[in-house]
Amino acid sequence: MRAHIQSLPGSKIREVANAALGRNDVLAFWFGEGDEVTPAFITEAAVQSLRSGETFYTHNLGLPELRTAIALEMTRRHRTAVASDPINADRIAVTSGGVNALMLAAQALIDPGARVVAVTPVWPNLTAQPWIMGAQLHCVSLTPTAGAWELDMDQLLDAITGQTQVLIVNAPNNPTGWTLSVDEQRILLEHCRRTGTWIVADEVYESLYYESTVNGCAPSFLDQATPDDRLVVVQSFSKSFLMTGYRLGWLVLPTAMSASMGNLIEFNTSCASVFTQRAGLAALARADEVTPRVVAHLKLCRDTLVDALLPIDGIELARPRGGMYAFFHLPGHPDSLQTAKRLVAEAGLGLAPGEAFSPQAQGWLRWCFSSQDPARLLDGVERLRGWLARSL
Amino acid sequence: MRAHIQSLPGSKIREVANAALGRNDVLAFWFGEGDEVTPAFITEAAVQSLRSGETFYTHNLGLPELRTAIALEMTRRHRTAVASDPINADRIAVTSGGVNALMLAAQALIDPGARVVAVTPVWPNLTAQPWIMGAQLHCVSLTPTAGAWELDMDQLLDAITGQTQVLIVNAPNNPTGWTLSVDEQRILLEHCRRTGTWIVADEVYESLYYESTVNGCAPSFLDQATPDDRLVVVQSFSKSFLMTGYRLGWLVLPTAMSASMGNLIEFNTSCASVFTQRAGLAALARADEVTPRVVAHLKLCRDTLVDALLPIDGIELARPRGGMYAFFHLPGHPDSLQTAKRLVAEAGLGLAPGEAFSPQAQGWLRWCFSSQDPARLLDGVERLRGWLARSL
Repeated sequence: MRAHIQSLPGSKIREVANAALGRNDVLAFWFGEGDEVTPAFITEAAVQSLRSGETFYTHNLGLPELRTAIALEMTRRHRTAVASDPINADRIAVTSGGVNALMLAAQALIDPGARVVAVTPVWPNLTAQPWIMGAQLHCVSLTPTAGAWELDMDQLLDAITGQTQVLIVNAPNNPTGWTLSVDEQRILLEHCRRTGTWIVADEVYESLYYESTVNGCAPSFLDQATPDDRLVVVQSFSKSFLMTGYRLGWLVLPTAMSASMGNLIEFNTSCASVFTQRAGLAALARADEVTPRVVAHLKLCRDTLVDALLPIDGIELARPRGGMYAFFHLPGHPDSLQTAKRLVAEAGLGLAPGEAFSPQAQGWLRWCFSSQDPARLLDGVERLRGWLARSL
Repeated sequence: MRAHIQSLPGSKIREVANAALGRNDVLAFWFGEGDEVTPAFITEAAVQSLRSGETFYTHNLGLPELRTAIALEMTRRHRTAVASDPINADRIAVTSGGVNALMLAAQALIDPGARVVAVTPVWPNLTAQPWIMGAQLHCVSLTPTAGAWELDMDQLLDAITGQTQVLIVNAPNNPTGWTLSVDEQRILLEHCRRTGTWIVADEVYESLYYESTVNGCAPSFLDQATPDDRLVVVQSFSKSFLMTGYRLGWLVLPTAMSASMGNLIEFNTSCASVFTQRAGLAALARADEVTPRVVAHLKLCRDTLVDALLPIDGIELARPRGGMYAFFHLPGHPDSLQTAKRLVAEAGLGLAPGEAFSPQAQGWLRWCFSSQDPARLLDGVERLRGWLARSL
């Protein structure tokens, strides 16, 4: 086996979760997933497709009607005065989940030895994928400031040179909640046009945004890009439609890239299942019945959790503008993996350790606040408080 | 985009199929897929899982109960006097289809610049994947002999040196129907032990085998390997259970590789959908109701087609021992892509061009004989005969 692959670290989040195996008294907030099943009308679309015999291969790039529906939705979200072209269906590739979309982007764009810049802390999959493709990875860390994580734009621009093949950025960010501003996206887009650098933008949390905006979304590179920019945007049905288990996502590509992406999908998964794609079609057709409710509830969860955490003595935490995580620094507990394991063992509380997302996030903890019952979050905070009092 | 990826050729099979767009009078035998929907009891297992709310992430390596069921099935098939250990569940990884299993194997085993040997003609995905990973690919061609394709073992052994990281071999073979013998597998296994070469064995057609055997399967490397051999076997639910559209497969790995494979699955697709895995469990639980019937029918289809083709003047064709393809040489028609397109346009017959599988198969055509109604195959042969008569 490749030494390169053997050296890939296992998931530190899973390491914490494994510490709870056999226990059913742990309040788990470690994974990036809520506890609400997929809405029945979405599931029934998959059921109907299955029972009608849609159990064959389909197009590599996805069902034409789903590509069209996604294109319309992305045009609704991201057609602006600057990006005035509609987003056409031939720029859409349907993928087997958001992470599959990211891996396909990595295969398409990253040569062995290529220089890749990633903004961290970030979901570890985004830095593992360039590693698998043999990239030379350069991480630029956000800086924690009063509980929030902020971008030093000059540092990032210095890192992106004419030798940088790809910039990987996830905003709204998992785990920090950091979000790129419109101005920052414009600066990055213009800079990467000059350096010839591709931008892979993981924007799967764009709809889980709690500020007031025209389109209900966080700022997106698509709001400012042309169809020919070196920009690949990754999206997913998982979070906004409560469809994590369906493994369905999509890519928005420059038109010229679609044919090659179809080839790559052929060589990776052939296609997403038709019945899964039918579920995606149903979700988009009635998006108004799902996403706004999900976002309103997540906002309540966020505020419930953050308001309960903030009074804890010494805690550093900012209210995230987007995403579904509270990311906080706990004073006096510098080893976040050990802390997370102790919280499981000694308090029955399951959180993700900050070091899973970057070395700079050592001492931080991630709390997924997507919970049908917000009282679970308060129970969790009480467990944290009790543990902190006992471990002084 | 990587020049490397842009240079990946599009599917020549799809190029032929595209030539038929807008026509509904074409008898299509180009894809490796039958025309029978998945058995209802399998589909209903997926339906029940969906409706019971199994719409969340699951283990990277698959549901423990599915890994166990697969391990039992693989032990039943491949435990022999030589390979006397049972195949344990910790050696099984559930994947999003057979092609996904192959790509995961490529990521795990192929370093940039590594020397990889592949036996051709072969399904083009098997040679595209090492290319994507930046391998230096060396193809060893089978030799056509009276319509059959045969392996020159000395030539293959010469190609596999101490510098060869991976050998990729698909037997029973798509497209030729060529099958490795027990002795040939032993020789290759022993040779690769000496050179330190990994064997990636695509054995997805092992159950579609028409000779009489103890286990109902074609010879498998697993019949002779130890759990520690550098052997990765790729399997799929697609063909033996009529489940192409489910995108569900598996890998049999050396035990020491499983943890890293779990990481790679996390970074590629996270997991296969739980409801899809439930369908796989149902399929394995009642395999006796599906696979034997499928194989008996395919044998009838094979014989129907081969017996109808053989009398055609000058045709070179051998009756395949395994798989679901008749692969034949048509005299006087050296350009198989052009021939396949002409057959679509002028005869309403859809076949796959040999050159899609290797340059050596130029002038050959692949006919997938998986057809619910064998009379369709005879209709196709009549169209071929008529076209040949007209194009003399």
